[in-house]
Amino acid sequence: MNFSPPKGMRDFGQEETIMREYVIQTIKKVFECYGFESIETPALEDLELLTAKSGEEISKQIFRVETEKERKLGLRFDLTVPLARFVANNPQLPKPFKRYAIAPVWRYEEPQAGRLRQFYQADIDICGSESMEADVECLACALDCLKALGFEDVVVRINNRKILDAFVEIVKEKIPEEVKIEFGSLEVFRAIDKLSKIGVENVKEELRKIGLQEKQIEKLLEMISLKGEFEEILEKSEALLSKSKKGKEGLEELKKIFEISKFYGIEKKLVLDFSLARGLDYYTGPIFEIEVKGGKIGSIAGGGRYDNLIELYGGRPTPATGISLGIERIMELKKKEMKLPKTRVKVFVANVDESMKRKAIEIAKEFRKKGIPTQIDLMGRNLKKQLEYADSVGIPFVVIVGKKEVEKGKLKLRDMVKKIEMEMRIEEIIKTVGTSS
Amino acid sequence: MNFSPPKGMRDFGQEETIMREYVIQTIKKVFECYGFESIETPALEDLELLTAKSGEEISKQIFRVETEKERKLGLRFDLTVPLARFVANNPQLPKPFKRYAIAPVWRYEEPQAGRLRQFYQADIDICGSESMEADVECLACALDCLKALGFEDVVVRINNRKILDAFVEIVKEKIPEEVKIEFGSLEVFRAIDKLSKIGVENVKEELRKIGLQEKQIEKLLEMISLKGEFEEILEKSEALLSKSKKGKEGLEELKKIFEISKFYGIEKKLVLDFSLARGLDYYTGPIFEIEVKGGKIGSIAGGGRYDNLIELYGGRPTPATGISLGIERIMELKKKEMKLPKTRVKVFVANVDESMKRKAIEIAKEFRKKGIPTQIDLMGRNLKKQLEYADSVGIPFVVIVGKKEVEKGKLKLRDMVKKIEMEMRIEEIIKTVGTSS
Repeated sequence: MNFSPPKGMRDFGQEETIMREYVIQTIKKVFECYGFESIETPALEDLELLTAKSGEEISKQIFRVETEKERKLGLRFDLTVPLARFVANNPQLPKPFKRYAIAPVWRYEEPQAGRLRQFYQADIDICGSESMEADVECLACALDCLKALGFEDVVVRINNRKILDAFVEIVKEKIPEEVKIEFGSLEVFRAIDKLSKIGVENVKEELRKIGLQEKQIEKLLEMISLKGEFEEILEKSEALLSKSKKGKEGLEELKKIFEISKFYGIEKKLVLDFSLARGLDYYTGPIFEIEVKGGKIGSIAGGGRYDNLIELYGGRPTPATGISLGIERIMELKKKEMKLPKTRVKVFVANVDESMKRKAIEIAKEFRKKGIPTQIDLMGRNLKKQLEYADSVGIPFVVIVGKKEVEKGKLKLRDMVKKIEMEMRIEEIIKTVGTSS
Repeated sequence: MNFSPPKGMRDFGQEETIMREYVIQTIKKVFECYGFESIETPALEDLELLTAKSGEEISKQIFRVETEKERKLGLRFDLTVPLARFVANNPQLPKPFKRYAIAPVWRYEEPQAGRLRQFYQADIDICGSESMEADVECLACALDCLKALGFEDVVVRINNRKILDAFVEIVKEKIPEEVKIEFGSLEVFRAIDKLSKIGVENVKEELRKIGLQEKQIEKLLEMISLKGEFEEILEKSEALLSKSKKGKEGLEELKKIFEISKFYGIEKKLVLDFSLARGLDYYTGPIFEIEVKGGKIGSIAGGGRYDNLIELYGGRPTPATGISLGIERIMELKKKEMKLPKTRVKVFVANVDESMKRKAIEIAKEFRKKGIPTQIDLMGRNLKKQLEYADSVGIPFVVIVGKKEVEKGKLKLRDMVKKIEMEMRIEEIIKTVGTSS
């Protein structure tokens, strides 16, 4: 038998869990302030539903679940697909429907640094609004989350699938009818998406495989290399996209995003980057990724608009947009700077001998009633061993329940950090321990 | 394509999620007060590990996950098996190791009322202590959780696997050597465990199948029918078990549990019930289930001691005990009496027309900064429609951002419940909305 977690997955011990919870609670609070509601869908979904609009890459990464009689199932690979199904399935929901979810997703990837096969996403989505105000609200909310976590120096890279579509149109026109090979936009997007992962030469090779000719590849790479400050790039690309209806639509949307972002005071964080493609097939409009400047960990948030997904799942036509924060990557970045306690336990109530056990339990009860995390001895240990245990676990205070002190209505409180002892009444001890950070 | 959740699973909308979170947070707080730490293990585990000590019933209920290259995996069916693996894998942990986990588990059961294929368990476990003090602490903690949730009138049914083992020994002795059929204790426990589900006649039939003869069945059913107040039943069973070493050990443990439970003031809630068997194979000592008196929903918590499981998973010999609360069953019971809000959102900032959009966003920002859940219009709706939306979602306050009022440095606040409007400064509004329940 193998006793480690499955490959590509890991256990989180108590210190990491304290930290994860801090990150999740911080994000959750901001999500709620922005008026998002939480819903919860099962970890498993219909396999057919999961694969419908995920793209080839991700489809291969779904953990498939065997069932005897029923439909094939799979573990969700993101939180957007289950949300789209939920909205499709609940047409009575008032629109916009704004929901958040913070939950694990599963992808059967080759394990690599910073990538796990089970990881947490924290998602907000706005369903029912086609306005770019919704996209900007998601961005503003995500940026506020990152700010609350101490990440102020971030960049939001933005693109639009409509512009990428226009690029593919333009590229196709470059080749005379008789030598044309048919290829789809999505295939091209998937290749572009790998740019930062596999490098330009390998992307070229992928584009060749799809059927693009050298001239087309060159033109495409030239167009997607446009990147920089919003207004400057918008201006530069206007002529380029002037003949494409889709391209102009995409530019219009980006302009609106830029305008509205000023209302939130976040416009300076936005950067246009036409090479941003995103890996999933379901996006239809603006797409975005957030990076920490100087962080070597890639994007810590990403998302975009997916106006067709809910309808595809049998719902009414419902425009939607959203963004997803990667909890593990945020934890990775926070780990170095944050100091969280090793344990949540504040006090250990030690009994001098077995005869004081009952008293110790009663005193622990008082602490617990006041909401103070408390441990007692459960091992029949002598006082020395109890103190050693409290020390090894990192509990900051020990209360020693001895006969003499109890008779005086007092107890001994030992500060394990300062290594000092004082005799105090229990009410005083509760106050001292309860108010310590 | 099918757009509903997989069979036996369900979505939880925002109201149910608010309630689930209330239940989980309440439990979590009590767990932490008792000095339990949280850890997190992956949802998937090695299939072999999951099936090793789960018992035939549960083994059949594991969702099996396909992987191409690696070991077979399965979704966890409880939180105890992953904990045992974690402890086996981390021998450096100081003992006792007290951990809690509140997380979903999966069982491929026939869907039935109150039973889902994905459900939440809230577990506490104490690893490393063989003392009955650990078992009682788990019980006291579980009872405090239920009290915090408003369930005071509960019964803890207790038994001991060692006593059930002794019963099987006794039953075996009743048959002369030459007609004996061999059967294991676990098979008998599994049959007894079904008593409340399938009734006495069907259990008899199961026992016959295992190989018990009528005389044995009668004796067994007679013994396990002992049930009632702790001291009374202990007395009655002493003679019965006097010849069995295991039986006496089991009784001793139960006596200790009863004694220690007095220190916590919970002894009156304990009832001895020799028919309690529990479904899982891994239990080795005391076992318990908590029921709400008069509740028709079965047990809402259950657990027991499993002294061999951690060693079985390759760890050092580590006695352990724990208890698990069923979140869905608790929610089912709370649902009728509890009134939680339909939405977490406190205020909707409405703009009189598009020209006030920027101002509305800025005002929303103020509310959000103060931690007040706030929505704005994202649909380009007129004021009437915005008010209708706020009403349909159940948002208690609407702030109306109109030009005239803004010029006076004021805003209109509409109380959606009382249906009254007032003109106020934003600071006053924040105070009014922020302090409303």
